[in-house]
Amino acid sequence: MLIRLAYDIQFDIPTPTAMVTLLSVHPSRMADLLEPDVLHTQPQLPLTSYVDTYGNLCTRFVAPTGHLRLSSTTLIKDSGAPDIVNPRAREIPVGQLPNEMLRYLLNSRYCEVDRFTTIAVELFGHIAPGWGRVQAICDWVHSKVAFNYKHARPTKSAMDVFTERVGVCRDFQHLAITFCRALNVPARYATGYLGDIGVPVVLPMDFSAWFEVYLDDQWWTFDARNNRPRIGRILMATGRDASDVALTTAFGVANLTNFFVVSEVEEDLAT
Amino acid sequence: MLIRLAYDIQFDIPTPTAMVTLLSVHPSRMADLLEPDVLHTQPQLPLTSYVDTYGNLCTRFVAPTGHLRLSSTTLIKDSGAPDIVNPRAREIPVGQLPNEMLRYLLNSRYCEVDRFTTIAVELFGHIAPGWGRVQAICDWVHSKVAFNYKHARPTKSAMDVFTERVGVCRDFQHLAITFCRALNVPARYATGYLGDIGVPVVLPMDFSAWFEVYLDDQWWTFDARNNRPRIGRILMATGRDASDVALTTAFGVANLTNFFVVSEVEEDLAT
Amino acid sequence: MLIRLAYDIQFDIPTPTAMVTLLSVHPSRMADLLEPDVLHTQPQLPLTSYVDTYGNLCTRFVAPTGHLRLSSTTLIKDSGAPDIVNPRAREIPVGQLPNEMLRYLLNSRYCEVDRFTTIAVELFGHIAPGWGRVQAICDWVHSKVAFNYKHARPTKSAMDVFTERVGVCRDFQHLAITFCRALNVPARYATGYLGDIGVPVVLPMDFSAWFEVYLDDQWWTFDARNNRPRIGRILMATGRDASDVALTTAFGVANLTNFFVVSEVEEDLAT
Amino acid sequence: MLIRLAYDIQFDIPTPTAMVTLLSVHPSRMADLLEPDVLHTQPQLPLTSYVDTYGNLCTRFVAPTGHLRLSSTTLIKDSGAPDIVNPRAREIPVGQLPNEMLRYLLNSRYCEVDRFTTIAVELFGHIAPGWGRVQAICDWVHSKVAFNYKHARPTKSAMDVFTERVGVCRDFQHLAITFCRALNVPARYATGYLGDIGVPVVLPMDFSAWFEVYLDDQWWTFDARNNRPRIGRILMATGRDASDVALTTAFGVANLTNFFVVSEVEEDLAT
Repeated sequence: MLIRLAYDIQFDIPTPTAMVTLLSVHPSRMADLLEPDVLHTQPQLPLTSYVDTYGNLCTRFVAPTGHLRLSSTTLIKDSGAPDIVNPRAREIPVGQLPNEMLRYLLNSRYCEVDRFTTIAVELFGHIAPGWGRVQAICDWVHSKVAFNYKHARPTKSAMDVFTERVGVCRDFQHLAITFCRALNVPARYATGYLGDIGVPVVLPMDFSAWFEVYLDDQWWTFDARNNRPRIGRILMATGRDASDVALTTAFGVANLTNFFVVSEVEEDLAT
Repeated sequence: MLIRLAYDIQFDIPTPTAMVTLLSVHPSRMADLLEPDVLHTQPQLPLTSYVDTYGNLCTRFVAPTGHLRLSSTTLIKDSGAPDIVNPRAREIPVGQLPNEMLRYLLNSRYCEVDRFTTIAVELFGHIAPGWGRVQAICDWVHSKVAFNYKHARPTKSAMDVFTERVGVCRDFQHLAITFCRALNVPARYATGYLGDIGVPVVLPMDFSAWFEVYLDDQWWTFDARNNRPRIGRILMATGRDASDVALTTAFGVANLTNFFVVSEVEEDLAT
Repeated sequence: MLIRLAYDIQFDIPTPTAMVTLLSVHPSRMADLLEPDVLHTQPQLPLTSYVDTYGNLCTRFVAPTGHLRLSSTTLIKDSGAPDIVNPRAREIPVGQLPNEMLRYLLNSRYCEVDRFTTIAVELFGHIAPGWGRVQAICDWVHSKVAFNYKHARPTKSAMDVFTERVGVCRDFQHLAITFCRALNVPARYATGYLGDIGVPVVLPMDFSAWFEVYLDDQWWTFDARNNRPRIGRILMATGRDASDVALTTAFGVANLTNFFVVSEVEEDLAT
Repeated sequence: MLIRLAYDIQFDIPTPTAMVTLLSVHPSRMADLLEPDVLHTQPQLPLTSYVDTYGNLCTRFVAPTGHLRLSSTTLIKDSGAPDIVNPRAREIPVGQLPNEMLRYLLNSRYCEVDRFTTIAVELFGHIAPGWGRVQAICDWVHSKVAFNYKHARPTKSAMDVFTERVGVCRDFQHLAITFCRALNVPARYATGYLGDIGVPVVLPMDFSAWFEVYLDDQWWTFDARNNRPRIGRILMATGRDASDVALTTAFGVANLTNFFVVSEVEEDLAT
C-alpha cells in the first residue's frame, strides 16, 4: 500500500522566534519512503537537523517576523496490515528490562506517575500482567473518557483527564501511559500520521497520537483513543509525553493561521 | 583540599524489588577520585552499571526481601574554591543553543514551564538577560521561600512551591529552574554531596540539590537554597528534575531505615 | 430606563433529576419590577421557592424525563446610571467588619485564598488600601487575562486563571475576588443580567458575572472582565463563588439544548 | 458520664491581628454544660460573639501585639453511649431534601465535588444507597488512607488525599465528605473534642474532626479516620469543610507557641 503524506502549516510570527519541529517521518520508517520527506519553509530558511535522545529527527531554525509556511509531501510504502495484536506478549520484570527502558517508567510533565501509584493498582492490579492488562487499561480509558476537541488545553495532565473524563487523543494516551508506568510497564507517547484508512473518513485530517508499550523484547502500538487495530500509522516521533514530542515548538510567539494534513492511500496509477 | 565522602543507606525490603541508584560521583569528577567510589551492598548483589541519557552513572540491581544496606566511602580532590561567579556570562539566544541544550527548556514533572510562562516574564522580564537575571531569580526564590524539612513531599512541584512558599532544597531549585526555562534559559537539576565547608555545620549531613544554568558556552552552578558561593560541591547527577535523578529509585516498596551521609574535609595526615 | 429581561433555557432530561435555579431577579431589586418575574416550566411542574443563606431567591423542582423548558420575561425599572465609582471608599479593618462579612474572606471552591496569600501581597501589597487597590486588582486581571469562550471549563479555579491567563467572565471575577480576600477585603461573586447598553452589542446575549467588594459600610460593584462602569446590571444572585450561585444546578444529568437571554432597553411606547 | 473539657492555646502576635474562634461547645450541647464554657483571653480583650450561618457560636476579637493566651475549662454531661449506628437510615432523594440541606451537596475549598463525580460513581455507585453506602465510603477511606501527622498541610484537598493516600483526621473526612456529596448525599465537616474514652489513650490530646451525613430526617455522625463508634464526642462546630470551621482563624500572623487540650472522664467525687 502506498500512502501519500503531506502537511501545510502556517504561522504569523510577530518577532523572530526559534522553532524546533519534529515534522519528519521517524528514522525507523525512512527505508519505506518513495519520495524524500523534506521540510520546505517559506521564506526559505537555513535549517539544522539533529536526532534527539529519543531517536527523533528534529529540525530547527529561527523564524523571521512575518508569515511562515512549513510544508512537505512524500509517499511511503506501508504493509497495509493493521496494528499487531499479540495477547501472549509478556511484561518484563523491571529487573530484566534493558537499561534504556527505565526512563519510560518515570514521571513526566503530563504523566504524574507518582500520583497514580495506588489508583493504578486499585483499578488494574488484579489483572494478570502482560498484553491483557495493557489492553484492559486501553479499554478502561476508551470507555471512561469522552472525545471532544473543545476540551483540549496545553496544560492538561493525566490527572486532569482522570477527573474531567474528556479530552483529545493526546489526553487519552497520557492517562493510559501513566497507568502503565504506575504498574512498572514502560510506556511512551507516539505521534505521527494516521489517515482514516479502512474506517469512515473524518475531516479535516490531523496528526494523531497513540502510545507504545514495551512487552517481551519490543515496543508495541496501543491507542486508547481509537482502541482498535488501525491501518497506516506512520510514526514521526516518540518520547515521554507530548511535551517531548510537540510537532512544532516555538520559543516565543507563533500564531497558527493554517493547518492542513494529508494521509491517504494513493491509487496505483500503473494499473 | 581532600574531601571524605561516604554514605550508609539502609532499607527494609518486603518483597524483591528492582532498584536504580545514582550514588556515584559524576563521571566529570572521576579523575579527582583518590579512592575508588564503589557501591557496596549487603547482602552482596549482582550490580549492573550504565550511563543514562543525561550522562549520569547509574547502578541497578534487584534487592531481595530483607534488610538492604548501600554504602560507599571515597576520597576526592577538590580545588577548595567557591562556586564561580561570572556576572558577564551571557544568555545564548535559543536559535544559537547547542542541540542538546534544547531539552533543558522543556516541561518536566516538577517544573511546569507551561504554567509559568507569563509569571516568569512578569517577575523577571524587565531584568537584563544573562547572569544577572539568573541571580535575580535565585535571590527571589531564596528570599520568598522558607526552608522547612517538615514541608517536603514527593509530589511537590514548582507551582506548589510558588504558592506554598516553603520546602526543602529540591523545591527551591525546582522553582528557580522553572523560571529560567520559562525565560528560555536552559536549566537543569543537580544533586550531590555538599558538606558544610566554610559555613556552620548543620547535622545530620545529607545530600544536597542545586541547579545548573547554561550561559555563554557552559553550565554554571546556582543554588537558590543557599544562594551564596559554596565550597566542595561534589556532583553526582544532573537531569531535568528530581524525578530524573533520584539517588535511589525503587520500583516497589523499600522502607528507609537508616540514612547517613558524610562530606567533610579530610585532615592531611602527612603534614 | 425600562429594561426588558427574558430567558428561554431548554434541556433534555434523560432521567428524573432534581434541579435548583437562581433565575429570579434578586430580592433587592424586586421593588423595581413592573411585571412579575415568574419562572415558567414546560411541562408545568410543582415549584418550591426559598431564600438561601446568601439572600438569593432559589426555586427547586424535579425535572421529569424528557424535554424541559425554563422561561420568564419581565420588565424592570433601572436608574440608567452607570456603576458608581467612589475612589474615597475605604477598606474596613477586619476587626471592625460586620460579623456577616467575615465569610467573604474565606476560601471557596474556585477561590483558593490560601494559595494566594503571598502572591496577592507581592502584587498589590504596596498599593494604598481602599477603592484604589481593588481597582488596581481589576486593572491587573483585566489586562493580564484574555477573554475566550473556548477556554471555559467547570473546574477552573482562580489558580488556573492565574497561570493560564485566559477564561470567561466568571474566571476574571474569581481571580479578582481571590486577590481581594487574600488582602482581607470581603469580596463576593455576583451574577445577573447585563445587556449591552451604551456599548456595542455582542450577540448572542448571555447572563454575566461580576463581583462585589465591601468597602466603607456597603457592597460595591466591580467587574474585572469589562473593567468599566456599565449601565443596566440587574442582579440575580451573590455568593462566595460560581459554585454557590450557579443559575441552574442539576443533581443529575441535564443536557442543555437551548439558551437564550434578553436584556435590553425597552422603548417607551407611551411617548 | 461527666467529661472535663479544657484548652490552653497560646500565640505570639507580631502585629495587631483580628481573630475569629469557634472554641465553644456547640449550641446544640449547651444544655449539657455543668459549668460555663467561657473563652478567657490573656491579656483580657473585648470579645464579640455571634452565630454564623452554619449555627456555630463564634467569638471575635483583635489580638494586640505580644503574647496571647486563649483558654477555657468546663464540665459537660454526656450519655456515655457510643455513636449511633443505624443501618436502616435511608438516603433522601435530592428532590425531597429540606432546602437548607442543599448547600451540603455543593463544592467547597477542600471538597472538589466536581472532580469526583465519576470517580465516586465508579467506586460506590454499585452499592445500595443509604447508611450502608456511607459506611462503605468510610471503610474505603479508612483502609486506603494512612494516618500521619507529618503529612498535614493547610492546602490539602480531597483530591490530594485521594492521590497521596496519607493525612490527618481532617483529610480523611474531606475525602469521605466529597464522595458523599458526589453521590448526592448531604455531608458536612464537624469538629470538636474527642477524648480517648474506652480506647487506648494517645497523647498529646487534640481536637478532632469527623463528619455528619444527612439520612432519613437527621444528621448522623461518621468518622472515616477512626471508623468505629466512639464515646464522648463533644461537637464544637459544623460547616462545609475545614475552611469554614477552623477553630482559630487569624487575619494576619499568629504564631502558635502552645497547644493543650483536655477531654477526659471526670471521676465522680460524690461517690
